[in-house]
Amino acid sequence: MTTGAFQRAAGAVRPLDQTAMEEARARQDRLTKPRGALGRLEALSVQLAGIAGACPAPVPAPAAVAVFAADHGVVAEGVTPWPQEVTAQMVANFVSGGAAINVLARAVGASVTVVDVGVAAPLPAACDGAPGLIRRPFGPGTANLGAGPAMDVAACSAALDLGARVASDLVAGRPPLAGDAVDRPFAARALVTGEMGIGNTTPAAALVAAFTGRPAAEVTGRGTGVDDAGLAHKTAVVERALARHAGAVAAGPLETLAALGGFEIAALAGFIVGGAAAGVPVLVDGLIADAALLAAERLVPGVAARCIAGHRSVEPGAAAVLAVLGLEPVLDLDLRLGEGSGACLALPVVAAAARILAEMATFDAAGVTDKEP
Amino acid sequence: MTTGAFQRAAGAVRPLDQTAMEEARARQDRLTKPRGALGRLEALSVQLAGIAGACPAPVPAPAAVAVFAADHGVVAEGVTPWPQEVTAQMVANFVSGGAAINVLARAVGASVTVVDVGVAAPLPAACDGAPGLIRRPFGPGTANLGAGPAMDVAACSAALDLGARVASDLVAGRPPLAGDAVDRPFAARALVTGEMGIGNTTPAAALVAAFTGRPAAEVTGRGTGVDDAGLAHKTAVVERALARHAGAVAAGPLETLAALGGFEIAALAGFIVGGAAAGVPVLVDGLIADAALLAAERLVPGVAARCIAGHRSVEPGAAAVLAVLGLEPVLDLDLRLGEGSGACLALPVVAAAARILAEMATFDAAGVTDKEP
Repeated sequence: MTTGAFQRAAGAVRPLDQTAMEEARARQDRLTKPRGALGRLEALSVQLAGIAGACPAPVPAPAAVAVFAADHGVVAEGVTPWPQEVTAQMVANFVSGGAAINVLARAVGASVTVVDVGVAAPLPAACDGAPGLIRRPFGPGTANLGAGPAMDVAACSAALDLGARVASDLVAGRPPLAGDAVDRPFAARALVTGEMGIGNTTPAAALVAAFTGRPAAEVTGRGTGVDDAGLAHKTAVVERALARHAGAVAAGPLETLAALGGFEIAALAGFIVGGAAAGVPVLVDGLIADAALLAAERLVPGVAARCIAGHRSVEPGAAAVLAVLGLEPVLDLDLRLGEGSGACLALPVVAAAARILAEMATFDAAGVTDKEP
Repeated sequence: MTTGAFQRAAGAVRPLDQTAMEEARARQDRLTKPRGALGRLEALSVQLAGIAGACPAPVPAPAAVAVFAADHGVVAEGVTPWPQEVTAQMVANFVSGGAAINVLARAVGASVTVVDVGVAAPLPAACDGAPGLIRRPFGPGTANLGAGPAMDVAACSAALDLGARVASDLVAGRPPLAGDAVDRPFAARALVTGEMGIGNTTPAAALVAAFTGRPAAEVTGRGTGVDDAGLAHKTAVVERALARHAGAVAAGPLETLAALGGFEIAALAGFIVGGAAAGVPVLVDGLIADAALLAAERLVPGVAARCIAGHRSVEPGAAAVLAVLGLEPVLDLDLRLGEGSGACLALPVVAAAARILAEMATFDAAGVTDKEP
């Protein structure tokens, strides 16, 4: 296990503040509305109070999105119809502001930081010196998890460290990994998990199967759009990988993450723990982020309580993670893009939950008669 | 049928622009993401293009919320545990900015206009001359629909006119019903239906039953929180009202709305038609607004295509309307407050759908390789 940024963050994750949560519940019941009428918003306001250790919790804005990008050796198994070069091209698209996550982040005033943790192809020239891009590749993509471990435990630990450090830098308002050409001056009050990596639904499904014990067929989905034959093949690849790496899975979560994961998935797990340690809500996106969250929770029990599932991805593995962790997603919009898109879309709802508790009048203050007992 | 603002609006409602929708579908398929990966956002962007008659559609912001408030004679049947004076008190709460809809509207930069169309109790002194409040009551609440028609057809027509005029004024950027002390200068690019009225889930359930033909037991819910005995009683009140007003229901949608509705429900139906005529999307909230939407669609077929269901209320009648009209709600957050709260919460998602189509890069422009065929 690492003794760097990840380990420090792991030691700093506290349980939710039960007193603040009790205060939030009591305050919800005095607001000028029928008790419980704001449904999930009320539960979110209670969780936010528990995360912040304050009632009402501060509004979780502005937010910072970190998009970790990497490639995957498992594409050699033919698990995706997309060419690997797209990962590098999409990094350039993120940097120039044209991807979905850029549009969605701008709409809510969130920053986007892109971290190359192992893109295989050379990044396009447009990326040179680009603000908002951090280049810390752990290799030209992972090795093929169908033929051996995706990465060694040392690389996995380093990716966990990197993710944890990006989280703490964004919350502190420091340029992440100071020295890189990143221009994000504000202190983030919420973090959003983002990722890009052609082929990454295969390692994510493998991790979900390994951590939940569910069969590959139950947690493997169509990703960016394979057909029936493609899905059957992908499921078989996941099944074989689980058999091959049974020893790593038995050894523990770090070994599992190294054998079956990806650089961006490990970095995301570190990012989630870093955000939990920093006391801000972490909005978790779809399948890839859910796999990272499950790894993070196995490594550091308690971090999931500080996370909010942004949406219910159409990927079956995502639903499996949410069920296992008891997380109720904020949105359900049939999304399957990744990048952090669904979590970013959920930010206004989460912020609204905090505002409701902070700004609504109480029955007493507004002179409104309460329901007859 | 009225020959005023409502009738003019009804004549101005056009079918969705199929050319703009085709362009929107084609453009979605060229954006740098797997086709269909943005799920419901893609469908929303197509609908917005059809509503605006332009691709991409303009971002539907800023929005204006209109909260129509009125009381209901049917409270004499004991259908709610809340005292009727709460309607007037909540109007004061809206005016002073302390209600849920105020908080949610502020968070998205939407205005709130409150329209007293028939509040029974005198409004608190704080309401005198308040900006954002329009006073056009059609009476001190409706009559008891359990004993006779809730209102006559003339009052119902006048409420439809008023609602249509408020919509067109808000879209034109005029102070609604000029002469009132309303200070809302911007031209709304989306409208949000809001309402307040102690007891109004009973007329709403009766209207849904009448317009869908479903039994009262299937569409009557707990509203702001009646217990099992209360629900059984409320269902029986709806059943008896349907039997009593079978003639009005057979006569047509205007007669149905007058016999079983409420002043704020009729005004909302007019507001929906007015917004549809003005070419802006109308975000529809929960049960009360859904009942008004169903009335509006029966009066002016085609308006529902220009509406977006903000959320799926926990009220069974709301789900029935959405199913009958084929509307898929944006959010599903177990809300049952009304006021426009769920529709207002959906605004950022709807705006994001427009932004995605307008701002995302295409495969060609970004130099991203498309999926292998």
